[in-house]
Amino acid sequence: MTKQIEPQSGVAFTLKKGDRLKVIDPKGQQVSDMVLFNYRDSREKLSSGKTLDFEESILITQGNYLWSNRSQKMMRILEDTNGRNDFLLAPCSPETFQIMYENPDYHPSCFENLYTNLEPYHILPDDIPTAFNIFMNVQFDEKGKLSVRPPLSKAEDYVVFEAMMDLIVGLTACSAEDSNGGSFKPIQYEVITRE
Amino acid sequence: MTKQIEPQSGVAFTLKKGDRLKVIDPKGQQVSDMVLFNYRDSREKLSSGKTLDFEESILITQGNYLWSNRSQKMMRILEDTNGRNDFLLAPCSPETFQIMYENPDYHPSCFENLYTNLEPYHILPDDIPTAFNIFMNVQFDEKGKLSVRPPLSKAEDYVVFEAMMDLIVGLTACSAEDSNGGSFKPIQYEVITRE
Repeated sequence: MTKQIEPQSGVAFTLKKGDRLKVIDPKGQQVSDMVLFNYRDSREKLSSGKTLDFEESILITQGNYLWSNRSQKMMRILEDTNGRNDFLLAPCSPETFQIMYENPDYHPSCFENLYTNLEPYHILPDDIPTAFNIFMNVQFDEKGKLSVRPPLSKAEDYVVFEAMMDLIVGLTACSAEDSNGGSFKPIQYEVITRE
Repeated sequence: MTKQIEPQSGVAFTLKKGDRLKVIDPKGQQVSDMVLFNYRDSREKLSSGKTLDFEESILITQGNYLWSNRSQKMMRILEDTNGRNDFLLAPCSPETFQIMYENPDYHPSCFENLYTNLEPYHILPDDIPTAFNIFMNVQFDEKGKLSVRPPLSKAEDYVVFEAMMDLIVGLTACSAEDSNGGSFKPIQYEVITRE
């Protein structure tokens, strides 16, 4: 059953080892931030630094694994119809909009949407790691200069992940203007349980 | 007073806001992993994801700030005579040598050298973030492929940091063969206190 994450919001749920998670961009050009925690001990969590190290790549897509801070495989990417994701940048937070966008007013953020939805699992704001930013298009040049561009994803592009351990998942429809081509769309997801 | 970190070891110490830390590569081609925690609340810590986001660059050097997971400035880089550091890869850990080097035996690691030295500050292994890897030379191509190369640093190259808050610092002389041109050298450091 496909579920919907409304624009600028988020969800949290669990996966069993062997379950598959399909994350869909139904309208195109919409980022989804994903964080992962070991269901049995949430101090084990997704690590960008371990993933980039073991996968020997900045760009993570089909065939790659997502690794934890304890050097364990958390997910495998089975399919990726778009093929561009980001694993460099922290989830957008209230400070992102204050500091980078010079917007002092309240602004929804992936950071808030992650920690509020993960609170029932006893995960606190300080526990949120750098997310795997599905469909996010961060370009870099040879000098390392980063630029956030509109996603390359088209309507109905999707990524399928397989859980390599029992997991708590936080997932958003991203709230940052620049990351999503200037408009906020929903994200859809489906959990395909192992028989 | 200049202090020495012996090859394949580490230290931890505190800095007051305004103090300067000079990290020296006395022989050249030696990496030093650095992690930072807010002295007043060690759940606030160094964040690669926030730093790359706010500084809009993969490569962090003179003029850049190091940011925390709470979007606060932890350090400013005042001088960097070498100019090449890494902020993508997690500290080498026992699993690095088992998984990437296919070495099942005990091997010293920055991860162990960080958490054992930080233990008196009640910082646990799971709390260690992706380190700022001073002098580490990680090259990337346009497709994001990463390769660890010998450091470009020459004998007596150094980086000077200014603390933007009271800090707990973990600092190593890195233990990984590939990161250090195949040999293990000491690292030196000096704390220049604010008058």
